[in-house]
Amino acid sequence: MKQPTFDPGLTQQYGHRLRRAINPDGSFNVRREGLDLRNANYYLNLVSMSWPRFLGLLLTAYFLVNCLFAVLYYAAGIEHLKGADMSSPLMEFASAFFFSGHTLTTVGYGNVTPDGLLANTISSIEAMTGLLGFAIATGLLYGRFSKPTARLLFSEKMLVVPYQDGMSLQFRIANKRSNVLMELEATVTLMTVEVGENGALQRKFKELKLERPKVLFLPLTWTIVHPIDPESPLYGKTEEDLRNLQMELIILIKCFDDTFGQTVHARYSFPHSDIVWNARFEQAFEIADTGDLVLRVDRVGRYKKLAGA
Amino acid sequence: MKQPTFDPGLTQQYGHRLRRAINPDGSFNVRREGLDLRNANYYLNLVSMSWPRFLGLLLTAYFLVNCLFAVLYYAAGIEHLKGADMSSPLMEFASAFFFSGHTLTTVGYGNVTPDGLLANTISSIEAMTGLLGFAIATGLLYGRFSKPTARLLFSEKMLVVPYQDGMSLQFRIANKRSNVLMELEATVTLMTVEVGENGALQRKFKELKLERPKVLFLPLTWTIVHPIDPESPLYGKTEEDLRNLQMELIILIKCFDDTFGQTVHARYSFPHSDIVWNARFEQAFEIADTGDLVLRVDRVGRYKKLAGA
Amino acid sequence: MKQPTFDPGLTQQYGHRLRRAINPDGSFNVRREGLDLRNANYYLNLVSMSWPRFLGLLLTAYFLVNCLFAVLYYAAGIEHLKGADMSSPLMEFASAFFFSGHTLTTVGYGNVTPDGLLANTISSIEAMTGLLGFAIATGLLYGRFSKPTARLLFSEKMLVVPYQDGMSLQFRIANKRSNVLMELEATVTLMTVEVGENGALQRKFKELKLERPKVLFLPLTWTIVHPIDPESPLYGKTEEDLRNLQMELIILIKCFDDTFGQTVHARYSFPHSDIVWNARFEQAFEIADTGDLVLRVDRVGRYKKLAGA
Amino acid sequence: MKQPTFDPGLTQQYGHRLRRAINPDGSFNVRREGLDLRNANYYLNLVSMSWPRFLGLLLTAYFLVNCLFAVLYYAAGIEHLKGADMSSPLMEFASAFFFSGHTLTTVGYGNVTPDGLLANTISSIEAMTGLLGFAIATGLLYGRFSKPTARLLFSEKMLVVPYQDGMSLQFRIANKRSNVLMELEATVTLMTVEVGENGALQRKFKELKLERPKVLFLPLTWTIVHPIDPESPLYGKTEEDLRNLQMELIILIKCFDDTFGQTVHARYSFPHSDIVWNARFEQAFEIADTGDLVLRVDRVGRYKKLAGA
Repeated sequence: MKQPTFDPGLTQQYGHRLRRAINPDGSFNVRREGLDLRNANYYLNLVSMSWPRFLGLLLTAYFLVNCLFAVLYYAAGIEHLKGADMSSPLMEFASAFFFSGHTLTTVGYGNVTPDGLLANTISSIEAMTGLLGFAIATGLLYGRFSKPTARLLFSEKMLVVPYQDGMSLQFRIANKRSNVLMELEATVTLMTVEVGENGALQRKFKELKLERPKVLFLPLTWTIVHPIDPESPLYGKTEEDLRNLQMELIILIKCFDDTFGQTVHARYSFPHSDIVWNARFEQAFEIADTGDLVLRVDRVGRYKKLAGA
Repeated sequence: MKQPTFDPGLTQQYGHRLRRAINPDGSFNVRREGLDLRNANYYLNLVSMSWPRFLGLLLTAYFLVNCLFAVLYYAAGIEHLKGADMSSPLMEFASAFFFSGHTLTTVGYGNVTPDGLLANTISSIEAMTGLLGFAIATGLLYGRFSKPTARLLFSEKMLVVPYQDGMSLQFRIANKRSNVLMELEATVTLMTVEVGENGALQRKFKELKLERPKVLFLPLTWTIVHPIDPESPLYGKTEEDLRNLQMELIILIKCFDDTFGQTVHARYSFPHSDIVWNARFEQAFEIADTGDLVLRVDRVGRYKKLAGA
Repeated sequence: MKQPTFDPGLTQQYGHRLRRAINPDGSFNVRREGLDLRNANYYLNLVSMSWPRFLGLLLTAYFLVNCLFAVLYYAAGIEHLKGADMSSPLMEFASAFFFSGHTLTTVGYGNVTPDGLLANTISSIEAMTGLLGFAIATGLLYGRFSKPTARLLFSEKMLVVPYQDGMSLQFRIANKRSNVLMELEATVTLMTVEVGENGALQRKFKELKLERPKVLFLPLTWTIVHPIDPESPLYGKTEEDLRNLQMELIILIKCFDDTFGQTVHARYSFPHSDIVWNARFEQAFEIADTGDLVLRVDRVGRYKKLAGA
Repeated sequence: MKQPTFDPGLTQQYGHRLRRAINPDGSFNVRREGLDLRNANYYLNLVSMSWPRFLGLLLTAYFLVNCLFAVLYYAAGIEHLKGADMSSPLMEFASAFFFSGHTLTTVGYGNVTPDGLLANTISSIEAMTGLLGFAIATGLLYGRFSKPTARLLFSEKMLVVPYQDGMSLQFRIANKRSNVLMELEATVTLMTVEVGENGALQRKFKELKLERPKVLFLPLTWTIVHPIDPESPLYGKTEEDLRNLQMELIILIKCFDDTFGQTVHARYSFPHSDIVWNARFEQAFEIADTGDLVLRVDRVGRYKKLAGA
């Protein structure tokens, strides 16, 4: 049995106008169609959306539910809301609307109160609805807070750097936040587009060997180094070769966020156009007068070109 | 010491009318008896039941607790609820019931208020009960939201597909949802019913070798391939052989849900009647004009029969 | 360098009246002294205590906080609580107490209301206290619900069972609950008391080899088997030998609770007095008319003595 | 390709006045600069700060939000708060402030009530704000409770102890709390400052071999032992050598907290000045009359100097 070709789970099928495999934010360029509604994960969406959208949605829901119950109270007869302002139809509806608010939030001032079985029943159900709704909001807020997020900063460029007797490919990462990341593991996969067995263009994947694929801590920066030795698929390749191969490097960093007790992953990719030849990263930290190390997060990607390249 | 026979934790004992070992939804055909009540996990049940049942249960509990406290207020004397409608016994009970609702939900309009030590004491306890109840509901709702669920879609059929110089057994999976699944591992166990050492029919279990038992990501589909080479227990077996052996393939997919930071498992099984001979999966994704890959979730199981079989 | 003796983390020091190393409920016979208060984990205690104690504590706290604020309102002057019953000092205090309840639970009927800066300030603080208290209670309740618990049932006895050409030591486990346990691993450590290098009695620890240390699933029972072959430290030992060695078997089962996405452990120990010689476990499940397997949880420990022992 | 030098993720760059690499509380001496605000993790900060600061922040937020809404009510016209005390501008503002409190906490006594569209709209929004705020507080409180924390106690000193034919380096740990820690793993890294290849001072890192790098349980103490055999980088080194090398030992303990189902890490470091030569730890536990083991947490670091050193 021949060794199958390696594929990290992306497709080997090559399409001409295909965009990069993984975006800088770690997402894939994949859409899903043909889903039925039962599989939609509303919780996932509500927990992943941006804060302004989430808060907007909550306020909209609050407004709509109030409107709905206001209509119900109005239909049941505004005269069953004792204390309501009945000076005009508009004020009647406004009274029903604000009474609905008192009930939904369980404020219950008591300046307007339900009278009779129907209005009382509606308000009983509304108070319960309000409590459930806010229980759901509490769950969603905690879900948003506790969602694992590794905010790793990748250098904007990969460098080809002199290394021992030859060259190496290097990029650098740092933690943008002050939470403690531990037991970091890096996996770097080379993706190229080559002519396959059947004569058509195919994506090929190869995992690159790293000088040091794991570190214990990440208080500062970590420079991930692939030595371009004779065993490397990049050995002897020129800038033009890489462009022709449509090279893309797919990066996966796995680590343990010790502050939250969660395993988190960061995905990134460097297209061939992000490679800088013959350069070296500059140091991204300084030693302060206090003896503290000061990490300059904005300098993680800073490099200088080497002379004589 | 002889090598013991392999058993993944299902039984080797064979019973004639035994159903499939694992259902398509991943559950086992096992009931539990002889449990004492202390081991019942009410939280587990409340978190696992369907949404309509869960919400129905909450509403029923709300109604019953209100009834209970209404009876208490009524027994303590409706005259101790100032503002209650005392026009008839029915309205008296209704007043007690709705006052109970005001208290349980902490709306507390104040149109009806407790008067005297007894009614005040009951309402104090009820307000506390209400808050605890809604604290419990909040916990249950979050428990329901955050329960790990891998919604993997399995192809309806397993295919026997030409592969290199021989044949292979293949099935395909995809993620129904848009959460990011990583580090997927597949385990495929063959279960057959054979004559055992003692002459009786026994279940036998063998793990099948996979072309590629792990992938890093699952943005699209993953075709899991068992090559039917001479080492395979399926080598040379015909459709009839498999039916006679009552073959069933037990699938376990383990993966890491990066969106929620949880390890999740999916279980599935293919009985021998789900095998299609000499067919091939059709591609389940397209490349859109934008360069995006579009996964057609409804085509994950689509295959075509091959000619000359 | 000599190989150090193995110790799973219990002590090798032997004391005559020492009790079993691990209790049947998985706890250790160890108390802690000399702790300073800052290390007390109140959350741990509140989440681990029994339900009746926990609810009792909540109610007591509710009562005491109400008393505290009642005293404050009383001290600030009962005349600043408009609507309070001032017919007697007792009723004055009761009014303050129940008003405190209205505020702490945020019911706020409004039959009694604060008047003046001082009473208003106290009630503002109390309402905030109440909300925080119930936020804490919500957190504790969820913490109690979601605490990982593997409720594994161990057979009461270990059996010495004929096995292949010799004997084996066996015990059996089952899951008491219906949650799905996966990827179970068993570790069995033999503890004996022997004369050590320095002539004094010492505990010795040895890990026992298992026929099958892992299973994938636990829908039914799992019989864990240590073959007493010539390599086993139990080879040739009699019942009296084991009593003299004060033998105890320390069991650790690690598994993944797929329903909650948590890794859980179960600890147990069998003292030598729990060994039954020459017996065999009876089957703990039946096949129902429906084809379902029915696990009889109360029969997990059932065995029968073998003749001719 | 030469073997790269080992670095656990701390830097090899040596600066003269650099402080110890890891503080006794496990934190790193690293500050972060150049961060943009979007990467600040407010949740992380709120969950990590001390309890007094956290509660102070909550109360301040409560006070400020009340002030804000009081200003809004006041601006909308105090005459729209029916029941407000309008005896003086101060009392008017106080009324608005306390009414805001009634609304934000959803107490809603009803002695003061909003009148007209504007006041009603403001109070509707405030009630919603209050509920959201307390949902956030609930999430933060649970986040604080459930944050993983291993409270391991390290002996204050490392000892050089006679061991077999030579010496060993030892330190001791215990669990300060009564939660169950399992599957402990220790990693000990030696950091020295030496003249590097380029002639400048450099930090060097070497992992030290341990007699027993893992234990299953930690009910008592665990003495972690590095034998100073000829393979050890410490072999033959004197107290002065270690001072000249600015030796520091970086300790990482990884364990599973079975009570909370979380993997936790503890970091610690021993500078060379914390080494005691030729001493031995005293036993930190006693056997009580009941047969219980009693761990004296305050004696975990207790040792005695050996004669003839």
